[in-house]
Amino acid sequence: MRLVGYRSGRRVIVARRISASTALPIAELEEFWEDPFRWGESAGERESEPIALAAVEQVPPVRPSARVICIGLNYAEHAAEGSWAPPRHPTVFARWTASLALDGDAVPVPRNEPGLDWEAELLAVVGRPLYRARAAETAGAIYGYAPFNDLTARTLQKLTTQWTLGKNTDRSGPIGDIVTSAEVGPIDGGLAIESRVNGEVVQSDSTSNMIFGIGELLEFLSQEMTLNSGDLIATGTPSGVGYVRTPPRFLVPGDVVEVAIERVGAVSSPIVAA
Amino acid sequence: MRLVGYRSGRRVIVARRISASTALPIAELEEFWEDPFRWGESAGERESEPIALAAVEQVPPVRPSARVICIGLNYAEHAAEGSWAPPRHPTVFARWTASLALDGDAVPVPRNEPGLDWEAELLAVVGRPLYRARAAETAGAIYGYAPFNDLTARTLQKLTTQWTLGKNTDRSGPIGDIVTSAEVGPIDGGLAIESRVNGEVVQSDSTSNMIFGIGELLEFLSQEMTLNSGDLIATGTPSGVGYVRTPPRFLVPGDVVEVAIERVGAVSSPIVAA
Repeated sequence: MRLVGYRSGRRVIVARRISASTALPIAELEEFWEDPFRWGESAGERESEPIALAAVEQVPPVRPSARVICIGLNYAEHAAEGSWAPPRHPTVFARWTASLALDGDAVPVPRNEPGLDWEAELLAVVGRPLYRARAAETAGAIYGYAPFNDLTARTLQKLTTQWTLGKNTDRSGPIGDIVTSAEVGPIDGGLAIESRVNGEVVQSDSTSNMIFGIGELLEFLSQEMTLNSGDLIATGTPSGVGYVRTPPRFLVPGDVVEVAIERVGAVSSPIVAA
Repeated sequence: MRLVGYRSGRRVIVARRISASTALPIAELEEFWEDPFRWGESAGERESEPIALAAVEQVPPVRPSARVICIGLNYAEHAAEGSWAPPRHPTVFARWTASLALDGDAVPVPRNEPGLDWEAELLAVVGRPLYRARAAETAGAIYGYAPFNDLTARTLQKLTTQWTLGKNTDRSGPIGDIVTSAEVGPIDGGLAIESRVNGEVVQSDSTSNMIFGIGELLEFLSQEMTLNSGDLIATGTPSGVGYVRTPPRFLVPGDVVEVAIERVGAVSSPIVAA
């Protein structure tokens, strides 16, 4: 199933999308994520009436406390295009959930930037607590996936040694619907991943080219940091980003950037002035 | 007033501490932080009965969605002791709220670390939304302060270029009560800040020695990232950390580390094996 979220007073409700414009409410956000697998693939079918998504304030169906764990340099060709050596360990940087945005949300270009850069990523959603997990035992731990654009302000990213600010500007993390692993099916063979600017393909690869696969990442990350249900792992972007091109190319107001992942879905973002 | 938090079912309640063992409930967490200033300094006085803190599950009175924005190298002597040049811009790294711990919580030493390192910090709590704020206009924007220990796993911190993992191990962010700015009073003259290991003073400085003051940080951070009420800013640590000593010194199981800040309070952490 495909999950969306919306506000109801101070609460957030997780709902199952049943069409482009309607969804069936499942549960309150925290209750949902306590054990997401328990709701099954036809959640809400008997209990709920469909709601019109246009009539509610939509928000990502993401716990506010979720870590958005981002993996840098996880495709060899992307590391090389940025003149980085192939990484010996996953490079981990952080987004706060406050930077997330929805499909269709306008994303502003920060001041003092030539534009934003695109980074198509497969987001993996943790489904149960993991502490010192072993890669081989994590097969059932991913609850779902989402298409994600790790939109980056390169000037801010490189202002100091730490990338944090350039990765957390307002609405810079567009996330699509969360699609359950049961619906996506096995991904071992790789999923096609693309980004497009105004329809032109600018990144095109397969998730099978990740240096560190999702199981390895779960093992690595959970060694000293207990992963929680609802935590999000942005698994890195393929080659083809804008800042390394000659001349460099960035997203400017008026552009529309889209990330599309096979069997998962797409997320589209119009770029606007701040 | 001094704020604590505790769970009530799936909700978190913010309460005003009235003694070492009791507190007056004020409001549900999200309602509280929508406009923290509105509750006043005697919140709960008429409406609530005191609760016994020993009878509830305490949690930090912090929004799960809060950014824990950490400033590195913000005291000149600390930058120098680590062989860093004086920073031209604030170095920003991220903690997720999932790493926070309470006063008295046992903090585990991660595997493959010689121990944890201490970093006493003044935590400033944002009280209202800020976007492109000017330093001179931010005087009333800080709702309160808390003592904070930015406990660091140095090996993980330096495994890659990004410090994230070494700053987010389980329970590595002990935070004391949040004390309102009204109670703390003006801090322009500086607050004495100390850390102690088993009673021995290992860091001792004044917050007046910050390179970038809190107003400057609010201006800098809010340029492209809208700060929200409840966001936390860890303003950096003074000199005297363990890893730069000869020989290096780290916190090992059995040690107790305490951070104490004048007029704000203290937070103490026993160190244990993982």
